[in-house]
Amino acid sequence: MKIVITGGGGFIGSKLAKALLARGTLAAERIARLTLVDQAFPAGLPEDPRLAALAGDISDAKFAERAIPADTTSIFHLAAVVSGAAEADFDLGMRVNLGGMRAVLDQARKCVHPPRLVFASSVAAFGGDLPKVLDDSTTPAPQTSYGVQKVISEYLVSDFSRKGYIDGRSLRLPTIVVRPGKANAAASSFASAVVREPLNGIAYECPLPPETGVWLLSPRKVVEAFIHAHDLSAAKWGAKWGANRVVNLPGITVTVGEMIEAMGKIAGAQARKRVSFKLDARIDAIVKTWPVRFATPRALAMGFKADPDVDAVIRDYIADEGIKV
Amino acid sequence: MKIVITGGGGFIGSKLAKALLARGTLAAERIARLTLVDQAFPAGLPEDPRLAALAGDISDAKFAERAIPADTTSIFHLAAVVSGAAEADFDLGMRVNLGGMRAVLDQARKCVHPPRLVFASSVAAFGGDLPKVLDDSTTPAPQTSYGVQKVISEYLVSDFSRKGYIDGRSLRLPTIVVRPGKANAAASSFASAVVREPLNGIAYECPLPPETGVWLLSPRKVVEAFIHAHDLSAAKWGAKWGANRVVNLPGITVTVGEMIEAMGKIAGAQARKRVSFKLDARIDAIVKTWPVRFATPRALAMGFKADPDVDAVIRDYIADEGIKV
Repeated sequence: MKIVITGGGGFIGSKLAKALLARGTLAAERIARLTLVDQAFPAGLPEDPRLAALAGDISDAKFAERAIPADTTSIFHLAAVVSGAAEADFDLGMRVNLGGMRAVLDQARKCVHPPRLVFASSVAAFGGDLPKVLDDSTTPAPQTSYGVQKVISEYLVSDFSRKGYIDGRSLRLPTIVVRPGKANAAASSFASAVVREPLNGIAYECPLPPETGVWLLSPRKVVEAFIHAHDLSAAKWGAKWGANRVVNLPGITVTVGEMIEAMGKIAGAQARKRVSFKLDARIDAIVKTWPVRFATPRALAMGFKADPDVDAVIRDYIADEGIKV
Repeated sequence: MKIVITGGGGFIGSKLAKALLARGTLAAERIARLTLVDQAFPAGLPEDPRLAALAGDISDAKFAERAIPADTTSIFHLAAVVSGAAEADFDLGMRVNLGGMRAVLDQARKCVHPPRLVFASSVAAFGGDLPKVLDDSTTPAPQTSYGVQKVISEYLVSDFSRKGYIDGRSLRLPTIVVRPGKANAAASSFASAVVREPLNGIAYECPLPPETGVWLLSPRKVVEAFIHAHDLSAAKWGAKWGANRVVNLPGITVTVGEMIEAMGKIAGAQARKRVSFKLDARIDAIVKTWPVRFATPRALAMGFKADPDVDAVIRDYIADEGIKV
């Protein structure tokens, strides 16, 4: 298999790359090449003869041509401008999130065999006047440009698949918790920071009230989901669902207050005291449009899995990142 | 008002232009300029000092810049590659239907005041595993590239509106019946031809069986809908529906057999005998994915109107086109 991960320098892209190299196979075939594509890469990429890193702008057609050679068998398209940034800079979001998807699809279409393409979409696809529990029939009505760009990309992935140009699969990711590193411009940044910062001994001002709900999935489970989405046969995606190649991933619903409580239970009262609240109306306005509860029968029937509970999510994070508690 | 109609050389664009010139106002303001934009124009455009015609490719940004000057107040975006053609030539459909929308939006955004933009979308937005009666909550799952391009355009119109760059309104048009002229590459061509050709004394081989249902609206009513959609205040589009600027227009459900019967009742048994049936599997496969029955409470509450019945649709066509019966 000859694999490309766009956004391969990012947190999830890097984890996916490590998991693929450790696994050695994809769709039961040996991984011959794994190319990470991103604007920049963190220090310390694994030393591995199968691995290459290519820096550039995926929305640039000429770069996309180099990044996705004609013998590519599998593409994980994770590259994106995050929600807060796409809202603050409309043109940037359109260029990277839409233009990048177009460049990837146009290049994928030129491959010798239609490659499998797994696209990282988002529950930011949903918004507006939502039902209490969303399901596979809920119509995407995003209230952010990021969400709109994700939904449009899903429709393109489905249509390129229907035409036989690619074999695409779009996953609507819950908020990924716990992200390591620093807070970023994503409006969802709080959902990881509220656990991560206190565990790292850092005080954190949460910009949202404790009753704020989050529909979440751990880094471990999302990496599993990407690989599972890729390895499922096209029939599993197509038969009952027509040209619809999009699935809402399973997740769990947890409030910010419950996350802080679980973190305190694992790491102690002192860690818990490091969290205070200072409402940020701008972030609150974005997060309020995101859905919190889903029924995901299609994804569960296809074999996708959520985390068992928020305690497991926090314990996995502590184990994976080698945090001292 | 300074108005642009893309696809202004087409059948509906021309009718809309005539109606606007006759009306003299739009949103209760005097029409100062009306520019028709299209690849080509039919002979016999009305002589009117307010009217101009500009030939070019709307998906070309440089042409779009000329077509939509900064003082434009209103855009009716009707230009499109029809369904059958967009399916046969994927790149053409993507360029004109998506690229054209992008060029129009990018140019509209540069206007001094955010222009009102009315976009001609289509019930081809729907497909796949549909409910018996579609409604305002049915999720678009188009099974043609044309439908995908329309849905993506709707999302762009809604997001550009949410951002305040335009004041957009997307109308999902039923099949427009009766179209004058010749059969074209649209898969929906049969729905007009089955009435029009016999009325013109021409034999017609219908490519679909008589039980085929059609969700239809007349040219008169669609022109009224475009003007009504434009003239409604932004509040009427926004208040309850968030960023969703899309509406399913009302229509009536009629079978091909019922259309032939109504036509025969009006024009006589001889006209009726001019229709025969010869199934075209390719067209049948596309038309089968289209929905036939809708509940349209949102549109009706907003004041959009369907035709009373198929007899009225046929009689209006005969009157408007000066057909001798």
